[in-house]
Amino acid sequence: MQADLICVGNELLTGLIENSNAGFLARRLWSTGIPVRETAVVADDEKSIREALERALQESELVILTGGLGPTEDDLTREAVASIFGLELTIDRNWLERMEGFFRQRGIDMPHNNRKQAMVIEGSTLLENKRGTAPGAMLKRKGKIIVLLPGPPYEMQQIFEEQVLKEVVKQNEGLLATVKTLKCIGIGESMLEQKIKELGKWDLPPISYVARGYEVNLQIKGYGDQQEATAAVNQAEKKLRDALGDAIYGCDDETLAGVTATLLIKNNMTLALAESCSGGLLSDLITDIPGSSCFYCGGIVAYSSDAKINLLGVAPGLLEKEGDVSPAVAEAMAAGAKKIFNSHFAIGITGVAGPGSDAAGNPAGLVYIALEGPDKTEQKQLNLGGARKAIKERAAQIALDMIRKAISRG
Amino acid sequence: MQADLICVGNELLTGLIENSNAGFLARRLWSTGIPVRETAVVADDEKSIREALERALQESELVILTGGLGPTEDDLTREAVASIFGLELTIDRNWLERMEGFFRQRGIDMPHNNRKQAMVIEGSTLLENKRGTAPGAMLKRKGKIIVLLPGPPYEMQQIFEEQVLKEVVKQNEGLLATVKTLKCIGIGESMLEQKIKELGKWDLPPISYVARGYEVNLQIKGYGDQQEATAAVNQAEKKLRDALGDAIYGCDDETLAGVTATLLIKNNMTLALAESCSGGLLSDLITDIPGSSCFYCGGIVAYSSDAKINLLGVAPGLLEKEGDVSPAVAEAMAAGAKKIFNSHFAIGITGVAGPGSDAAGNPAGLVYIALEGPDKTEQKQLNLGGARKAIKERAAQIALDMIRKAISRG
Repeated sequence: MQADLICVGNELLTGLIENSNAGFLARRLWSTGIPVRETAVVADDEKSIREALERALQESELVILTGGLGPTEDDLTREAVASIFGLELTIDRNWLERMEGFFRQRGIDMPHNNRKQAMVIEGSTLLENKRGTAPGAMLKRKGKIIVLLPGPPYEMQQIFEEQVLKEVVKQNEGLLATVKTLKCIGIGESMLEQKIKELGKWDLPPISYVARGYEVNLQIKGYGDQQEATAAVNQAEKKLRDALGDAIYGCDDETLAGVTATLLIKNNMTLALAESCSGGLLSDLITDIPGSSCFYCGGIVAYSSDAKINLLGVAPGLLEKEGDVSPAVAEAMAAGAKKIFNSHFAIGITGVAGPGSDAAGNPAGLVYIALEGPDKTEQKQLNLGGARKAIKERAAQIALDMIRKAISRG
Repeated sequence: MQADLICVGNELLTGLIENSNAGFLARRLWSTGIPVRETAVVADDEKSIREALERALQESELVILTGGLGPTEDDLTREAVASIFGLELTIDRNWLERMEGFFRQRGIDMPHNNRKQAMVIEGSTLLENKRGTAPGAMLKRKGKIIVLLPGPPYEMQQIFEEQVLKEVVKQNEGLLATVKTLKCIGIGESMLEQKIKELGKWDLPPISYVARGYEVNLQIKGYGDQQEATAAVNQAEKKLRDALGDAIYGCDDETLAGVTATLLIKNNMTLALAESCSGGLLSDLITDIPGSSCFYCGGIVAYSSDAKINLLGVAPGLLEKEGDVSPAVAEAMAAGAKKIFNSHFAIGITGVAGPGSDAAGNPAGLVYIALEGPDKTEQKQLNLGGARKAIKERAAQIALDMIRKAISRG
């Protein structure tokens, strides 16, 4: 089985909204062994939706449409799908009442145009939306599955996970590819390729490389008999882990922040941060992790020399002598945070996020990171390229990786 | 003139990489009055690229392809475009030398497969890539413009801005739609619609609504004679501003953080932060702005009660009595940050980011924000829905808006 995605919405074609739905659906389908053949983003207009859908139905067994299920007149996905198959739209009483209740709760009368959202394509299954007023729909015609999902990611994702994915896999005769993604950091794509070449003839499932910022993902994909495929993929994983060691930080849905957090929790270690040029991004990444309060004491964004002195206890003389952007100051920041928060680990980051050089003439992208551990200190100097945001992100990733390696290497 | 976008890359169809290029190009083209008709994401395979391109060429005068210009065998965009028009690929000596120099600088011999990136379609213009080894290309055939751009956003964007946009506008007889986007915050889409309905018959350029998280963007688009269109759009803008007041925080490419930063700088005001549940996100958003060090003193992420007590001087008794998640603690955090950083404004945010309720039984999404100003204090209680990340983002946005309104209302 392969899938086509059709994302409906003028706002996507004006770029005012990032189309995160395509990425999410592609990721989830791909990892269950259903490749996405093509994604189309089309306007809120019945003809465009119809053309894209007809094209998709010629190629793929599964077509998922997102968006165009809202209450306004330019929400036309239902209408387009119904007309292609010559089906009627009928009102779903239960959903109508449900919506009226939804608005009543908020003390608002349901605007009349919301009635539209209770219209369902005859013969389709209504997919309950627990997070909004637009239900999804699943329709089976001529051996094809057509799924309609609302545009808001938070609503779409929940419906897909709970009501669509299982059904799709069932239709796919429960056939699943065995897929494993190994996530590498701190090693370039070409170096990675070389190390893997050095393993000699590769008669295991094929590997593909996806460079992603500072990371490279290795995808191993085994098809055919579930058991054999899994065995082969595991064998490939073992070979790669032996060859690449802790350049592999995790796999599949794991994130660098998540893996680092797990290591800290497992080892009952706590973390504190002193950020200058990364400006709180590292703290944000860590606190995105549910339960981070178990190990994260907190952080100080010391965006001025005064803050470095008053809050982190960096010696004025040191700033004077070495400058704000220096290895010594990074170390003093980390030491300060470790002391103030009384944590096992502390990170100090100071540098120039750019766009321009700083007052002292340090170039944008020059960043110093210090890691204070229970019993040793590490330092890294980075010379990063890219825009301000990219420099912040890269610095935060490398800091996370320093913590991860420090703990896992003990 | 209208445009089609074709994004090439298996990694986009596996969802392992978010397709930010489509959004960026759509945004830039749309705002110069060139609507994007459709976007296709296709695999790294010549047939798919060809089919998408043939389809696009039937509909649009401008077709932009991104990706598939790398050095590996599965980078096939050049080949697909050349073959459609029956054109040859020839080596560009200058670019070859440029690449060899690029690698020499890094002390690496140029891998042989990079030669591929110096292959250009005959009759096309090479678009210099200052940020990587893959040059772009622009080709004019049968009254159509075909543009090839590398996949990495940082490279693609720079080439597009410096070498593509002007040329495209020129080809479009310099015709530009007059477009203005007014960005609103703190007011729902339906309420906005109602306020605008109340303005009565609307004979000015049409308005479209795009809800985007906590924001709603109002797009006004005037076509035809430049002067008349501009006048009409300005008139519409004035009407909307009169009706909506400071619900409109900015327009076009302005961001809430950027507008707030500008207000702070204009008024020589400084800002400090005390974040708990937002975990450093607000600090990150502010420090994304170049020059934020002019007004941003720094922040404290007080992720534990101890940190609130030791770093922000929140009274233990207060935490005891009111609990970490309370208006009083938000206020004490803001007051602490204002004192410590000696700033004009300070924000205190405390709440429950979720997923679950906190130990005290406060539900996820309950957030208190306090703003300490030069001469008054404000409070907000939020009951937010959505995932952990969404709750953090919403809280950070609302905090920014509190600062913005406090300054602009004086």
